[in-house]
Amino acid sequence: MGISTRLTGAFGLEHPILSAPMAVAAGGWLAAAVSSAGGLGLVGGAYVDRDWIAAELDEAGDTPVGCGFITWALERSPDVLDLVLERRPRAVMLSFGDPRPLGARVRDAGVPLICQVNSRPDALLALEAGADVVVAQGAEAGGHGAHHRSTLTLVPELADLLADRSPDTLLCAAGGIADGRGLAAALMLGADGVLIGSRLWATTEAKVPTGLHDAALAADGDATTLSRALDIARGLPWPDRFSCRVLRNRFSETWDGREAELRDAGHTVGEDWKRAFVAGDPDASNTIVGEAVGLIHGVQPAADVIERIVAEATTLLGAHGTAASALRETDRGVDG
Amino acid sequence: MGISTRLTGAFGLEHPILSAPMAVAAGGWLAAAVSSAGGLGLVGGAYVDRDWIAAELDEAGDTPVGCGFITWALERSPDVLDLVLERRPRAVMLSFGDPRPLGARVRDAGVPLICQVNSRPDALLALEAGADVVVAQGAEAGGHGAHHRSTLTLVPELADLLADRSPDTLLCAAGGIADGRGLAAALMLGADGVLIGSRLWATTEAKVPTGLHDAALAADGDATTLSRALDIARGLPWPDRFSCRVLRNRFSETWDGREAELRDAGHTVGEDWKRAFVAGDPDASNTIVGEAVGLIHGVQPAADVIERIVAEATTLLGAHGTAASALRETDRGVDG
Repeated sequence: MGISTRLTGAFGLEHPILSAPMAVAAGGWLAAAVSSAGGLGLVGGAYVDRDWIAAELDEAGDTPVGCGFITWALERSPDVLDLVLERRPRAVMLSFGDPRPLGARVRDAGVPLICQVNSRPDALLALEAGADVVVAQGAEAGGHGAHHRSTLTLVPELADLLADRSPDTLLCAAGGIADGRGLAAALMLGADGVLIGSRLWATTEAKVPTGLHDAALAADGDATTLSRALDIARGLPWPDRFSCRVLRNRFSETWDGREAELRDAGHTVGEDWKRAFVAGDPDASNTIVGEAVGLIHGVQPAADVIERIVAEATTLLGAHGTAASALRETDRGVDG
Repeated sequence: MGISTRLTGAFGLEHPILSAPMAVAAGGWLAAAVSSAGGLGLVGGAYVDRDWIAAELDEAGDTPVGCGFITWALERSPDVLDLVLERRPRAVMLSFGDPRPLGARVRDAGVPLICQVNSRPDALLALEAGADVVVAQGAEAGGHGAHHRSTLTLVPELADLLADRSPDTLLCAAGGIADGRGLAAALMLGADGVLIGSRLWATTEAKVPTGLHDAALAADGDATTLSRALDIARGLPWPDRFSCRVLRNRFSETWDGREAELRDAGHTVGEDWKRAFVAGDPDASNTIVGEAVGLIHGVQPAADVIERIVAEATTLLGAHGTAASALRETDRGVDG
């Protein structure tokens, strides 16, 4: 049983599923588990901690995994990209920033380039960067994003754009996808696959403290909010365009809207947040998940999660797996 | 060719498509055109102008159409509901407010009740009101909404809720759906049908001035913003929870963020806005469309739009139209 798309063909996958390179949570264990289950796992290079990344790539061992970075953070430590490229990752993913300069180095190394985008102008930059895969991230996604466009409208609009400008570039949907319904819907919208965050965050292999997992399992999809407080508290220079989707909690309610005061509070609040995050305190740090949290009711091994998603999507799409290919025939000139 | 779902069965439709009861734009001509094309058209009762509603229902003639209201506005003129119910509409839709008191009168009249909701608590109120159809409206929708949840996550979460609490209640997806890809995706997510706004706003039969249509055709999906200025200028007492998705323009950029000043400016700004809106001035009023505007490239007759949407969705779902029924077998217990 499987769902064949251009993505599975290009990367030799069983399933058209990438795991989001989530900071901290997506270590080598999770990435390798996703790849072993037939998807493509991405280590969360995120804020570019060289030693952490090296250790997590070691943890993945011989299982082919990729690595994702926050573009503006990688620009501050570009040598870490060399370290990663030397290890021949299955792909490098760049998110949140202009992917062209660093993307060129990825492509020069012969490594597939995945660019996450949040808008049509972002997608045009990704094409200039030579992206092999464009990931269209909608506002429902957990963690950082531009939160201006939804997955449901961004994916088909970018499918049309790619069909027109760069038909060989693959497209994945990200944000709000946590089960087979979401995977099937994404394929209907014109995606070649999906990138899944929150649902794979809620797995045995994700590096997530129990307290944060428990907070997510108790939440419904209305429980998230967009926050900047955790970034300001930690002194992370996120561009204004991006905020972070988290479960609304004591920390977000205390500090959101008081950003100037938070800046003045100096490192204390950030240090307290970091300690609470490591300890899994869902009130004094943040549970970083998307709106799809309302579809997540248990923490299971990643392989079980992926198997269930694919089985459900296969049923929905019909047993013959033809939907995605039919899609490619109709995703141009839809209107007009 | 058609897509059979529980919605088409319950209402005797050819296609699982409702038209949004858009203020001003959705008159009797559009509603009747949608119903004649095999969907269910809804007149935009909106702010409850008795004479306008009566004239538009007359315009629809013998074609069966429904009527939609803004709940808090109908509460101020509840006698207009009697006028509408006496005409035996195909359905009454209530949006933006507690549907229980007015919904009881709709049900007592033997008229199907459709409740649009923006969250899980809203859906629970709709069930208490005895809704026959729950419309899950995501943040990508044009015009008013709570803009807190996306269609992609709200629909499956409410599908699970309904399966658990009220399995005979039908579910429609609204927000971001403008082509066959969106319809097919919505059915994958667990909806029994869709409610379409912007795409049917861009039709020959919609009461929309050319200037606003032209502005929409020139826009991409990144071009919208959430605004309160038009409501404040017009003195409309929208609850704080709701804002209006419009094309970002001179009016929104001038006034959003200056709400107190706008209130002080009194009626002048509102009167100017109204004149500009009637004249189709896209800079001095607002073009009220959703993120799906990036998928709309022409103004056509409603029947052509619906035919194309259904044809595309049918191709995507496979020729046999079995996807929706397969869906109903798997939309419970997806996770956990």
